[in-house]
Amino acid sequence: MKLVVIDAEAELGKPPRGWRRRLFEIVFESETPEGRLFDKCIILAIIVSVVVVIVDSVPSSRLRLPTAFNIAEWCFTALFTVEYLARIVSVQRPWRYVRSFFGIVDLLSVLPTYLAVLLPETHALIDVRILRLLRVFRIFKLTDYMVEYQMLADALAASRRKILVFLSAVLMVVLVLGTLLYVVEGPRHGFKDIPTSVYWAVTTITTVGFGDVTPKTEVGRFIASVMMLIGWGTLAVPTGIVTAEMTARRMPSGLGERTCANCGVGGHAGDARYCRLCAAPLVTPGEPKRVDAPAMPR
Amino acid sequence: MKLVVIDAEAELGKPPRGWRRRLFEIVFESETPEGRLFDKCIILAIIVSVVVVIVDSVPSSRLRLPTAFNIAEWCFTALFTVEYLARIVSVQRPWRYVRSFFGIVDLLSVLPTYLAVLLPETHALIDVRILRLLRVFRIFKLTDYMVEYQMLADALAASRRKILVFLSAVLMVVLVLGTLLYVVEGPRHGFKDIPTSVYWAVTTITTVGFGDVTPKTEVGRFIASVMMLIGWGTLAVPTGIVTAEMTARRMPSGLGERTCANCGVGGHAGDARYCRLCAAPLVTPGEPKRVDAPAMPR
Amino acid sequence: MKLVVIDAEAELGKPPRGWRRRLFEIVFESETPEGRLFDKCIILAIIVSVVVVIVDSVPSSRLRLPTAFNIAEWCFTALFTVEYLARIVSVQRPWRYVRSFFGIVDLLSVLPTYLAVLLPETHALIDVRILRLLRVFRIFKLTDYMVEYQMLADALAASRRKILVFLSAVLMVVLVLGTLLYVVEGPRHGFKDIPTSVYWAVTTITTVGFGDVTPKTEVGRFIASVMMLIGWGTLAVPTGIVTAEMTARRMPSGLGERTCANCGVGGHAGDARYCRLCAAPLVTPGEPKRVDAPAMPR
Amino acid sequence: MKLVVIDAEAELGKPPRGWRRRLFEIVFESETPEGRLFDKCIILAIIVSVVVVIVDSVPSSRLRLPTAFNIAEWCFTALFTVEYLARIVSVQRPWRYVRSFFGIVDLLSVLPTYLAVLLPETHALIDVRILRLLRVFRIFKLTDYMVEYQMLADALAASRRKILVFLSAVLMVVLVLGTLLYVVEGPRHGFKDIPTSVYWAVTTITTVGFGDVTPKTEVGRFIASVMMLIGWGTLAVPTGIVTAEMTARRMPSGLGERTCANCGVGGHAGDARYCRLCAAPLVTPGEPKRVDAPAMPR
Repeated sequence: MKLVVIDAEAELGKPPRGWRRRLFEIVFESETPEGRLFDKCIILAIIVSVVVVIVDSVPSSRLRLPTAFNIAEWCFTALFTVEYLARIVSVQRPWRYVRSFFGIVDLLSVLPTYLAVLLPETHALIDVRILRLLRVFRIFKLTDYMVEYQMLADALAASRRKILVFLSAVLMVVLVLGTLLYVVEGPRHGFKDIPTSVYWAVTTITTVGFGDVTPKTEVGRFIASVMMLIGWGTLAVPTGIVTAEMTARRMPSGLGERTCANCGVGGHAGDARYCRLCAAPLVTPGEPKRVDAPAMPR
Repeated sequence: MKLVVIDAEAELGKPPRGWRRRLFEIVFESETPEGRLFDKCIILAIIVSVVVVIVDSVPSSRLRLPTAFNIAEWCFTALFTVEYLARIVSVQRPWRYVRSFFGIVDLLSVLPTYLAVLLPETHALIDVRILRLLRVFRIFKLTDYMVEYQMLADALAASRRKILVFLSAVLMVVLVLGTLLYVVEGPRHGFKDIPTSVYWAVTTITTVGFGDVTPKTEVGRFIASVMMLIGWGTLAVPTGIVTAEMTARRMPSGLGERTCANCGVGGHAGDARYCRLCAAPLVTPGEPKRVDAPAMPR
Repeated sequence: MKLVVIDAEAELGKPPRGWRRRLFEIVFESETPEGRLFDKCIILAIIVSVVVVIVDSVPSSRLRLPTAFNIAEWCFTALFTVEYLARIVSVQRPWRYVRSFFGIVDLLSVLPTYLAVLLPETHALIDVRILRLLRVFRIFKLTDYMVEYQMLADALAASRRKILVFLSAVLMVVLVLGTLLYVVEGPRHGFKDIPTSVYWAVTTITTVGFGDVTPKTEVGRFIASVMMLIGWGTLAVPTGIVTAEMTARRMPSGLGERTCANCGVGGHAGDARYCRLCAAPLVTPGEPKRVDAPAMPR
Repeated sequence: MKLVVIDAEAELGKPPRGWRRRLFEIVFESETPEGRLFDKCIILAIIVSVVVVIVDSVPSSRLRLPTAFNIAEWCFTALFTVEYLARIVSVQRPWRYVRSFFGIVDLLSVLPTYLAVLLPETHALIDVRILRLLRVFRIFKLTDYMVEYQMLADALAASRRKILVFLSAVLMVVLVLGTLLYVVEGPRHGFKDIPTSVYWAVTTITTVGFGDVTPKTEVGRFIASVMMLIGWGTLAVPTGIVTAEMTARRMPSGLGERTCANCGVGGHAGDARYCRLCAAPLVTPGEPKRVDAPAMPR
């Protein structure tokens, strides 16, 4: 799922002209000064609104300034509602925006406040507002950290299948070992049912180790010790997966699937234009074969 | 141990014809539509039966639906018994299946229910049913994640000896340090005997840190701090082992699928044109065999 | 920020002659025997003064030797004050020194003692003296570990942007998940407000797991288990970043200290004979410049 | 320090002939059947004696079989004393053996039992017997895991300086942050003095997280969260160091410091005898230049 980059122009349709085109350039693009200013204001508003939600949850601060929090809340809701509507009216295909990841997040960040008024019993849902935070991911669009972000995302995406297989294998180990500890320790020592035991097994194998549930018998502790050592050793596996992926990406050899038509040598750097061993020009498949005449030693 | 792939045809013997051959194709293979359907049903039954065992362990749910759990339990036992018998009768060498890893697991997943009826005092063993879970490993056979699974398993298998040596060294360190803390802290501070101290040392060096046993004296805490820093630094070792293994597997240079036609040696660099051991020219498959005359020692 | 190496001569200005030049050579340089002796004495004094601050904080030892600690404190303050003044008077641009990292640290390590006398109510600030410890970083200047230190610092600096992006992504995940647990568990189970929940989420995702706040409900524990597994898997990412950086630095291929004499490009593979961008022959320093005529595109 | 391999013949001196030579071959070498049998018996005795010490520490088992433990203890002491004396008399340079690592360990594994009889007040030292465990390192000599052990030890030894620099930097961070928490939280919240705070900082930054000391104030928890994230990110550094070392060791291009005298290409595999690009024989410095005539394509 592309969290960050939405090529808004291609996906949502840039209106051909008029105020809607202008609005599109402001709310979706960052090329114009107005677009950049809009982006900065919105991100500032998101951060402040998230801070308000967080501070609002602290009982002591809520008692001190109940009105201020209410006012701030309604201001942010109004602002984000206007922004949501502006996004809808400025694109050619509003329905596609509404169903996109950011479309849903944008809606979820205003809906709870309205619902809390219309249906007072849904007030508990008000904390869903924290999803506003997800909108902060838009920040990456602004910064020049896109390259690093993309590289990280690519390495993770490329390792996705391996990590999935690894986690599913860990899940089975955790289920079997959790049940084993449930049989060995039993409800008397805090392992009150299998879900609790599995929860304990997860805290142990991931080396988190809360300590709210711990083995008390000699046998249970022995099994737990073996589990910890295994979990510790296994920790190497996801690390190895991602690291190997990242290392391979940095290696100049590993890019070169091209081979020299003259001498047959492979492993050329991604930007190579001439064979490093015989100086024959390299041809990339599906590319016009004309190359500049090389600088010759005479 | 090959957990996943059993080449059932070669190992257990495919009957030449008749209903046994047909049964074999259904229960052991996934090539026919019936075989695939059977595999999917069994895996669904395994997952549901495991969920039932887990939910059954929660005291509140057991009280609510005691009959439902009993009925579900007997249905699964009947189903898995039929499957177990079908596997036995459909192979040429049933005894080999019975003693195989999956043969034992298949038996262990039905036996406890029968035993609990025949010998009521063995009821405590009923939780052995969770071993049904191990049968889920059959899932991998179905999916197209086999390649990733195999690659992970290979990298781990190749690093097995090094990880073993590492864990045995850690074990000794843990025994010595655990005893040291037992001498320093003593039973008064929770280190009641050497096994407990060693259990504590394992939780510490693996960075799990439950906190049910912790040093209280200044000296004990100093030793513990040194242990943690060492354990943290040492964590790098298993990671390094697996990562180096995985990185080496991804490198195009060093993989060298070409072998020398003259001396049979493999592992040539990607750009090698001559064998590094006998200087015979290397031929890349599907490439014109003409090579330049090599520079000869005269 | 360069913590360690200050090229004092270039940055702060070495006086041309006289007693100030001599003082400069003693307090800022380590080339002369006096300079080395001064460095060693100061580092010894720093270490002893830090130990005194640490031991002073232990209530039992403070009661036993109140006068001794007071005297030691004043001796160190006097010594470091003299050193500070010597550093100021011996450089050409004292103001630049005062505002430098070490200038501020040097001041902060003597100020609290004076302030505690002049303004008794600032006595609580006396522990700021521990900042003296930062001065120990000067040690690296003395040792021959500079190369390793520089290499570590370089690898970290080169990975800085990627680690920043990674940590900011983790921060968002932690905020969302912490709030989720706050909604699920609520103040009754210790998640008394969102900051506390986020603190808990950080302890969980970093696998620290203090256990002072833990989920109690089934749903909370399920979410926590998923978080731990994700956190565990994600741990691979910063490791992968730094490791890939360090591995790339060690690889001979890819380092390419040769540059093309024709177009100036660097980073050639170890076995390259022609520039990969302009096909000009590469010359290894100290090697006969004759090369075979390259295969030309005609 | 070479823990494992003692080239006993070169270091301690093999007696030229007679019963001492025979004794040397039995107790120090594993080439003869008697030598191998002796090694196996001693390692079995060591393991059993360690198990006895461990079980002896469990209060319930000590009460049950006090005489059995006493007898076993004296048998092992007698056996190890005889072995120690045999080692002394069978070497040419007994004093060198006595002062070697294993000489000291061998002595420490029998001394406590004698001391406990002669000086009853040293009975507390009886647990020093656990040092017998260190003798188990001899096992590696027996097994064919020596290669893996040596490779691990080499990688660690090669990364030693970098890990030392890293740990010293961590130590400073831990001292400063521990003191910071001491100032912020204070004795009221369990941070009773600086050593305790530093101990807490170590448990936090290494992600052990016992939870016996935890921050209670908002500010303290904020600082702790930052620490955990930093510690988590920094964990990558020792891993990166060892991994880069291990990866470099596996790379064929990283071994080859040899260059071809004919075409100047470098990066040859460690076992290469001919240049992979021009088939000219490679010459290792300081090695006779004669090579077998290469297999030529005709």
